[in-house]
Order: sequence, then structure tokens, then C-alpha cells
Amino acid sequence: MFNKDTYIKRRQNLVNNVQSKGILLFFGNIENPVNFEDNTYHFRQDSTFLYYFGIQQPKLAAIIDLDENKSIVFGNEMSIDEIVWMGRQETLKDKCEKSGVLDVRPYADLATYLATALSVKRPIHYLPPYQSVNKILLSELLQISLGDFKASVAMIQAIVKQREIKESQEIEQIESALKVSTQMHLLAMQMARPGAKEYEIVSAIEHVAGSHNCELAYPSIVTVNGGILHNHYKMNTLESGRLLLNDSGCETSMGYASDLTRTYPVDKTFTSEQRDLYNIVLNSFEGAKAELKAGVKYKNVHLKACEILAQGLIDFGLMKGNAQDAVANHAHTMFFQCGLGHMMGLDVHDMEDLGEQYVGYTAEEPKDTKQFGIKSLRLGKELKAGHVLTVEPGIYFIPELIEMWQAENKYAEFINYEKLNKFKDFGGIRIEDNFLINNDGYKHLGPELIKTVTEIEDYKRQF
Amino acid sequence: MFNKDTYIKRRQNLVNNVQSKGILLFFGNIENPVNFEDNTYHFRQDSTFLYYFGIQQPKLAAIIDLDENKSIVFGNEMSIDEIVWMGRQETLKDKCEKSGVLDVRPYADLATYLATALSVKRPIHYLPPYQSVNKILLSELLQISLGDFKASVAMIQAIVKQREIKESQEIEQIESALKVSTQMHLLAMQMARPGAKEYEIVSAIEHVAGSHNCELAYPSIVTVNGGILHNHYKMNTLESGRLLLNDSGCETSMGYASDLTRTYPVDKTFTSEQRDLYNIVLNSFEGAKAELKAGVKYKNVHLKACEILAQGLIDFGLMKGNAQDAVANHAHTMFFQCGLGHMMGLDVHDMEDLGEQYVGYTAEEPKDTKQFGIKSLRLGKELKAGHVLTVEPGIYFIPELIEMWQAENKYAEFINYEKLNKFKDFGGIRIEDNFLINNDGYKHLGPELIKTVTEIEDYKRQF
Repeated sequence: MFNKDTYIKRRQNLVNNVQSKGILLFFGNIENPVNFEDNTYHFRQDSTFLYYFGIQQPKLAAIIDLDENKSIVFGNEMSIDEIVWMGRQETLKDKCEKSGVLDVRPYADLATYLATALSVKRPIHYLPPYQSVNKILLSELLQISLGDFKASVAMIQAIVKQREIKESQEIEQIESALKVSTQMHLLAMQMARPGAKEYEIVSAIEHVAGSHNCELAYPSIVTVNGGILHNHYKMNTLESGRLLLNDSGCETSMGYASDLTRTYPVDKTFTSEQRDLYNIVLNSFEGAKAELKAGVKYKNVHLKACEILAQGLIDFGLMKGNAQDAVANHAHTMFFQCGLGHMMGLDVHDMEDLGEQYVGYTAEEPKDTKQFGIKSLRLGKELKAGHVLTVEPGIYFIPELIEMWQAENKYAEFINYEKLNKFKDFGGIRIEDNFLINNDGYKHLGPELIKTVTEIEDYKRQF
Repeated sequence: MFNKDTYIKRRQNLVNNVQSKGILLFFGNIENPVNFEDNTYHFRQDSTFLYYFGIQQPKLAAIIDLDENKSIVFGNEMSIDEIVWMGRQETLKDKCEKSGVLDVRPYADLATYLATALSVKRPIHYLPPYQSVNKILLSELLQISLGDFKASVAMIQAIVKQREIKESQEIEQIESALKVSTQMHLLAMQMARPGAKEYEIVSAIEHVAGSHNCELAYPSIVTVNGGILHNHYKMNTLESGRLLLNDSGCETSMGYASDLTRTYPVDKTFTSEQRDLYNIVLNSFEGAKAELKAGVKYKNVHLKACEILAQGLIDFGLMKGNAQDAVANHAHTMFFQCGLGHMMGLDVHDMEDLGEQYVGYTAEEPKDTKQFGIKSLRLGKELKAGHVLTVEPGIYFIPELIEMWQAENKYAEFINYEKLNKFKDFGGIRIEDNFLINNDGYKHLGPELIKTVTEIEDYKRQF
């Protein structure tokens, strides 16, 4: 936990920011069952609960009374039976004390507390529940059908406003996660050689995280088919002549994430085509990075990255025509189907549970939810000093998309389908780092992890 | 997957065994969210679904129509959007074909199918749901309040009768999990030295599992406080003079578990007291093992193990009086608070989601749910050839229990509290292996993992 004042101050700021009266309701997470009730996945506290209360214990809830400006945590102390089976641990009372909460009540009291509030028609603000157990709980506590939840926009907006600006101690956490993740990536590069299995590398880099007492921030993507964007299949054998894409990061024990991607040859050196395509992505990465600054709209950084990709692909011969026109017509989405990046913090996609529209966009400029490509851009709004985000351009060859669009003759003026068909099985390339936005530009977070062709080849030659 | 005939035959046997008419309803599991909807824990299919259908894919359901003797799987094929993001995979239709199911329908059709069945009052049998998402689904599909589920005893009993007798191909899976788990344990023994952190060992042995493409069968317990039975805290530093307890096992990619425990010194050798107490547990283990045989009640094997423990503790001076009397009076539960073992298969506590009463006991001799000690024995009934189970006696020193019972003067005629107080911080010892029951006795499953004092000391001296 951070120190007590951190949590007291965060809650006070929230009370000041919420443009409403009533009660803010927070649910912690539980230990989720795998294949029966008592065999559970590792416990991960809800990020908003962590941010305002800092307590890592299953089955907690909390309220902040906006009118009386007070916080209550609801949860149970261990019974003697539980102490026998699980060992004496710090009491909930002590944990709450460290969070500056002095009013701690049994979990069962939450129901009566909320029933009283409902009976006098006090507004009860809550966030969109994502775990089914909390959906059930919310439904029971507030007498709302499961399909009828109405999360509080006032609460969401106030929380986003606060959580999106990272404190220096949060930046330290993220950089500490990045130190470990950098080691994960160097080990993967070292292990990438013909004959290795994807899952062996997945397991080895997860061990790097675990040996630093870190969990993964998200399931690792370690794949020879980098064209598949969310590829958790890991049974392939690495073959000479192919690239390996590694998108993986860990989170600290306090929950702060890191999110890095590198792509490199299974062999010690890039082929000529791999090198050329890799450098297009690297140029896009560097070009996007140079745009980062408070006041700039991230959507424009995304478009800049797309244009550099398109120009590179035109020069390489996979695209044709004018790069700006190609991007304006979305033709680049044949190769770059997703967004340039997203916020990062206590979640790898920070606050995604609160709704992308509130985190990455504004009411004035809402998210485009229809147009292929841009609809997958999680962050479009103006950047502020204190934002932490990822930059992750890529080139992806997706056989199904190539076949479908070629059959439709889609973007024929911008795409060289004849040449493209030779790259159907190429895979994909992504380069990703994490940045802190400031008024002058940005700070690259974490250690510099090698990424040029020369750096990677020099490194790989050592093994 | 096993071959098609396996699943066809299993379903046919189930149809023959269920003493009822109507429809059997099976839910698969989903990918459970960690901290937001799209960031998920690793997918683990429901074990009963795996057993009868073998298909490892989230968001499936299935029915077996008992009256028409036919099976239907409900689930969706990937959309083109999903293929773009997640890659082309084997179609659901193909997977179902491998399971011998030719009737595959869209997931949404399950609702209409069940509504029709309800409208003509056909009995719909279902199992107790353990994942909240399936509780919600069941409630919506069958119009039952969340608190009012009535799982089908006929369905549970028929499934238990079938799943508790392991096929030879299932034994092979379990032995294959045990091969990997044995390596996990040898590595942990090697790493156990003063200065090491518990979490470093946890992570290293999980890497052994991962590098064989195995998941853990349950969260590893690797602790210097072995007296704490379910101890997932892993931040302690190993100190000279203490024991380390490692209870960990993996499951194969098909879902079959292994469950091993070893306890050994952080140093290369046991102290004299550690050796004496260790040998009491080992005697109990060997004594219990010798009792294993079809036709024997496991409750009696448990009591035999308790008596050996009690006699050893009397000889050692921590208990006094007569061992049989001590066990009859439950005085041994000061040291052995739990049960001797449990069924194992597709779940580490096999079929625990179906209810311990149905898996481990009979209507004639139900579980004692009140008496401290025996109430934690998951398996009490008569053993049959084909049962796979764990044997895991232990001695646990639990400071809170010692203090509480001493204050009550509980079991004073059997417990030497004066001496016991010197052992408050000793920790705990457990030895656990897995066995297949047969008509002549048992088969020890998996490689023999070293467990005598001499074997362990000889092994540890190598590092």
C-alpha cells in the first residue's frame, strides 16, 4: 500500500469532484472459482477499489458518503476456523486503518446500510460491474434486474479525471513493472530459435515475472503468427525464416501494469523483407512518439502513425497512391486494423471497465464505433500531462482479410493485391513501449529495451 | 481429446445410468474477467463438460435428451471479426464431430430449446453451478431465482458413478501429470536453502509445469509455515532450521490433475526433532497405504492413519494415554485437523462441484459435518477398483488452536501441553502421493518421488 494520506487525499478529491449527492458504492473482487468453488484463480483486487482503498483482500465493499464526507469499508474479520486453515493475517481493521478508514463493518451490514439509503431515496452511485458475482450482488442489494444496471456517469467521470493523471509514486510502480518486463523480453529474444515451442517461452517469461513476485498484467501473446492480434495459442514450434512476436508485461504486487511488444526473427538475423517491413513499423513508432505532448489529440498521433505506415508500404510496394489519401480512405487498415495505443495504469487498458468512451474520448468528440480500424482505437482524446499510454503501431497480414477484401476489390486503388498475396503467411510485426505525457513532450518509461534491427541482431548473435 | 468413441460411450452410459426422463443440461465455462471484461484468466473448461464432450472452448452448453437418446451442443462459430482478431481455428462443428455430436446449434438457440422443453413440462436436470456467470445463465434460462436452484440428484449420482471409476486412458493422463509434478517437487527441494524466497520457488515450479504445457491443478502451497493448511502467502524468506512444505501439482492439457506434497528441511539435513516428527507422518502414510484396497472404507483408512499418528506422538511425548482412545475422542485433531485424502481426476478434489456427500459418502453413511477433524474428510465411503485418490497424513502445529484448546483444557488427558508449547512455531509436515485402487490393493501412480529422511538428505546434499 501507499501511505495513508494517499488514500485519504484520493477519496477527498473524489468527493470534491463528483457533481452529485448521495453514496458512492465500490465493490472489491472475490477469488473466482476455476473448476469448483474452493479451487480459485489468483486473487486480483478491483483496480478502482485498489486506487481508493488500497486493500488487497477478497470480498470487500466500501461506500463513500458524499453528503457526510465519510468512508466505510464492509468486510469480515477471519473466524477462528479460517485462522486455523489459512493462518493469522493482518486484521481487516488494521488494513483499513492504513487506508485511513476507521469505520469498518461486517460485510452483511452492507445490505441493511443500502436498504436504509434506498428507503430514503438517497442516490446510490455505482460503476459498471464486470465480474458476474458482483453483478448478482448489485442486483440483490439495489433490487435491480441484471439487465437494468445504470452505472453513474458522474462517478465514472470523476474517477477517470483522477485516475488518468498518474502520481509520481504510480509512475515509480509502472517503471518497476517495466524493469521486470524488460527482462522478460530479453529472455524471450534469447530463447527464440528454431525448434523452440511458443509455450516454453511463454512459461519462461512468466517465470521471470513470478520470480520478482509479479503477476502478468495480461495473458502473454508469444506467437509466430503475429498477424493474429489476440493470439493466445502457444503450441507452435518456432521455425527458421519466421518472426516471433512477443506482447507481454507484468504488474507489480500493487497492481500497476506494463505492456511491451517486440518482434524479431527466430534466426539471428532478419531477412531482407523482414528488415524492410520492420523498419516501416519502427519509423511509424518513432514518428508517433515524436508527436506525444500534452494538448495533442491522440487520434492525430494515431493518424500520423498510420500515414508513416502507409508511406512505408507504398515505398515497399504493398500499397500504392498517396499515403494521406490512403489513410483518409482507411485503406491502411488492411495492414493496421487496430489502434495505436491506450491508457495504462492499474489496468493494462486503464479503466476499460469504466467504459472506453469515458476514458479515451469526450462527449464533444465521441468514439467512432463503426469505421473498421479507428473503431478499435481506445484513446482518441487530447493528451494531458500525467497520462500514461502505450504506442504500438504494427503491420499485420491476415489471410482472411486479404481474401475477403480482394474478392470485394476493396481499396484496389491503394493496395497491390498481387504482391500482397505473397505475404499472406508472413505474420505480423508490432513494436510497443510505454510513455508518460508531459507539457514538453513525453518521458519514455522503464529501461530502454533494444528495438532497432542492429540492436536485435547484435543481441541475438550472443546466444 | 480422446477418440470419438470414448465420448459417445460415456454419454450412452450416462443415459443408461440416469434413473429419470427428460433432459440433461451441461454448461461449459467462460473466460473469466480479471480486472475488466477483456482481460481474462486462463480458460479452464468445466470438468463434467470435458468428460462427456471433450471440447475446450469457452461459452458452450450441451444437452442430452434422455428420451430420444441424442446430444446437442450449443455454441457459436467464430465470426469474420473474431477470425481477424483471434485467427482461424478449428470450427466448432469439427470439434463436435470429434466428440461424436452431429447436432450443433447456435448458442442463442439454447434459450428457445429449453423454453420449449419447459412449456411441455419435460424434466430438465442440471448440476450445481459454481461460476457466477452460469448461475445467472441458469436462472435466466430456467426462470429460477438465484437462490432456488435444485440440482438433479439423479444426474449427479449417475455422473459420480461413472467419473469415479477411471478409464485406463485417464490413468495415463494422471500419470503424465505426475511425471511433470515430480520434476516440480525435485526442483523445489533443490532450491530450498536459507535465503531463498517462497515465491521464487513457487514461480520456478510453475515454470516446470508451463514448460510442459501444463497448467497448475491448484494454487501451489510452498511455505515455511506448513502448519497453515491452505497457505498461499509466499513472501517468507527460507531460514536455516525450518522445514519447507510443498503441496503442488499440475494438470495435463486435457485437464487431469496430480497432487503431491513433500516436506523437507531448508538445510541439507533434518534436525533430530524434525526427523522424529517426519517419521511419524511417514509411518502413518505407509500404514494408510497398506490398507488401500477395493472394499475397504476410506474412513477406516483415515482412522488407521490417525492412530499411527497418535501412537507416534505419544512415543514422542506430545500426546499421552492410549492411541485408540485418543483418536476415538478426537484428541489427535490437535495435530491432524483435516482428512486423509480425497478423490482425484479431472479435478484435484474430483467432482467437488457436484457435492462431497455424493462423491465421498453414501446415503446410508452420510458425512459427519459437525465433528472437528472428520468433518474435513472428503472421502469416507467404500473404495472401488478404479478409484484414484490421495493419501496425505500430516502433523500441523497451529498456534491459535493450541492456545484456544489449552485455555479450555481440552483433551488434557491426551495432550502434553507443556511440551506442545515448545512446538508452537514448528510449522507442519505433510506427505502426499496419489493411488489407483484395485481389487488386490493399489497401484502407486506416477514416478516414485523420494520421501524417506535418507533419500531427501542424500538428494539435498548434491546441491
